[in-house]
Amino acid sequence: MEIKTYLNEQRQRVEKRLAELMLEPAGEFSRHIESMRYSLFVGGKRIRPVLCLAGAEAIDPSEPVRNSTLTVACALECIHTYSLIHDDLPAMDNDDLRRGKPTNHTVFGEAAAILAGDGLLTYAFDLLSSPHSAKITDSVRIRIIQTIARAAGPLGMVGGQSLDMLYEGRQVGYETLRRIHRSKTGALITASVVCGAMVAGASIEQEEALGIYGNNIGLAFQIVDDLLDVEATTEELGKPAGSDVQAEKVTYPSLFGRETSRTMAREAVQEAIAALECFDAQADPLRALAQFIVDRKK
Amino acid sequence: MEIKTYLNEQRQRVEKRLAELMLEPAGEFSRHIESMRYSLFVGGKRIRPVLCLAGAEAIDPSEPVRNSTLTVACALECIHTYSLIHDDLPAMDNDDLRRGKPTNHTVFGEAAAILAGDGLLTYAFDLLSSPHSAKITDSVRIRIIQTIARAAGPLGMVGGQSLDMLYEGRQVGYETLRRIHRSKTGALITASVVCGAMVAGASIEQEEALGIYGNNIGLAFQIVDDLLDVEATTEELGKPAGSDVQAEKVTYPSLFGRETSRTMAREAVQEAIAALECFDAQADPLRALAQFIVDRKK
Repeated sequence: MEIKTYLNEQRQRVEKRLAELMLEPAGEFSRHIESMRYSLFVGGKRIRPVLCLAGAEAIDPSEPVRNSTLTVACALECIHTYSLIHDDLPAMDNDDLRRGKPTNHTVFGEAAAILAGDGLLTYAFDLLSSPHSAKITDSVRIRIIQTIARAAGPLGMVGGQSLDMLYEGRQVGYETLRRIHRSKTGALITASVVCGAMVAGASIEQEEALGIYGNNIGLAFQIVDDLLDVEATTEELGKPAGSDVQAEKVTYPSLFGRETSRTMAREAVQEAIAALECFDAQADPLRALAQFIVDRKK
Repeated sequence: MEIKTYLNEQRQRVEKRLAELMLEPAGEFSRHIESMRYSLFVGGKRIRPVLCLAGAEAIDPSEPVRNSTLTVACALECIHTYSLIHDDLPAMDNDDLRRGKPTNHTVFGEAAAILAGDGLLTYAFDLLSSPHSAKITDSVRIRIIQTIARAAGPLGMVGGQSLDMLYEGRQVGYETLRRIHRSKTGALITASVVCGAMVAGASIEQEEALGIYGNNIGLAFQIVDDLLDVEATTEELGKPAGSDVQAEKVTYPSLFGRETSRTMAREAVQEAIAALECFDAQADPLRALAQFIVDRKK
């Protein structure tokens, strides 16, 4: 299958639904809503929403299922965007550039940026609990909310970012590096695929298989991120290249060198694809996405 | 009824359940969990959890209902605590003292404090979606999650805080002041009472009556907060007294004077109690809490 075409189609669906679901910058809170919208619509790969849609498609490619999945996919993008806004803050990574544009706090100020992140995180759970995706039963909806809250929470993404801060500038080993990434990036990526499958009525076995898939593409995604940081230019990345080296961050290339890192990414992708053997051709988008993640140039 | 005794009993239940539900500072994320626990257990009036319990009690005072309500009450306290941590940040109100103790960022640093808030907010939705309160049906649970997400989100608490920041140091009129408080403080207080009632199986009419009650005690609570800031000492408050004047914040006393403000608070409490006329003696704790809110000395 042609992954570029697939990605573009799914991204267009996500952009359309995001535009429908996101609050309009009108009324008393317009400035706050503007700051949320700025980061949400400044551009992005929409990898998590697309993985969520592909996860559902692997189980049930029907239109009603995709329609319900889109809302969950948008909530995941709200959570991902909030995490970028907070990670970029002066007190955290202090980045001025993200997705090729000035970071939220450089445009709206630090206080507004913190609140834009808080607003997006909270709004994600508003979306997940709103009744407009009739295809999802309440019990499945609850499991999805819990899965996402766990993945984004103190033992997941937020915990991972706090570990990242804790170890910044310190020489850590592979075990710690892996733990940081598993929680900081891996958890939400895995939840994206699994929650998409939940909407489509996946079995526990299918959820588990997709969990293994998610963990492995999460790992591959992070390794490639590290590689791009040393190999790509700021223009290509849309964020400052070489920032990891500058921040003295331990990365896969810094631990294993580029060659080995590249191989590790390829192996992770192979494991991800192997985990999908119980799925038929409906999982081809997931297989292609895994390949895309290691081949991507930004 | 003796409100002090009631408050102490309910607070003890809340403290006990919070201790049971909160993550332990063990394992890789212990430092992050410590920072969350610091603000959650540093002390506090637990007004929102108690209002949540009293809201449920007004409908159904049975033990199983209270048991289920306690989890919702704890989630509300996690959200309230996250909002205090973020409001105190240097980029926001820049307060060093809260609940008589150093604020989160003065103890753990700015980055860790931002993440402690993010962690508590996300964990609240983990609690709300976790299966351990069997008394709540999934559909009610979803409505509770949505009600709390709305109250805490961009059109509620977060939006209110962003308005507060936006107007800081500027002379605003009563309308704006009211809008800020209604969203920043009122929304979550109202949600606390209403969600407690939802757990107990309240009717739409009962939810609406409790909504009016909540809006009015929210208003009274804020007016008294403003009054205490000018009348009480730092020791009594456990946070810097006179901080509003210092920050040139428009408050009820600054707009209407202390006497009129005091009267407005009393009137709001009367309206709150009037809204409860369709309830029997089971709502006495709500009535007593309304009175307590204007009489409190800190």
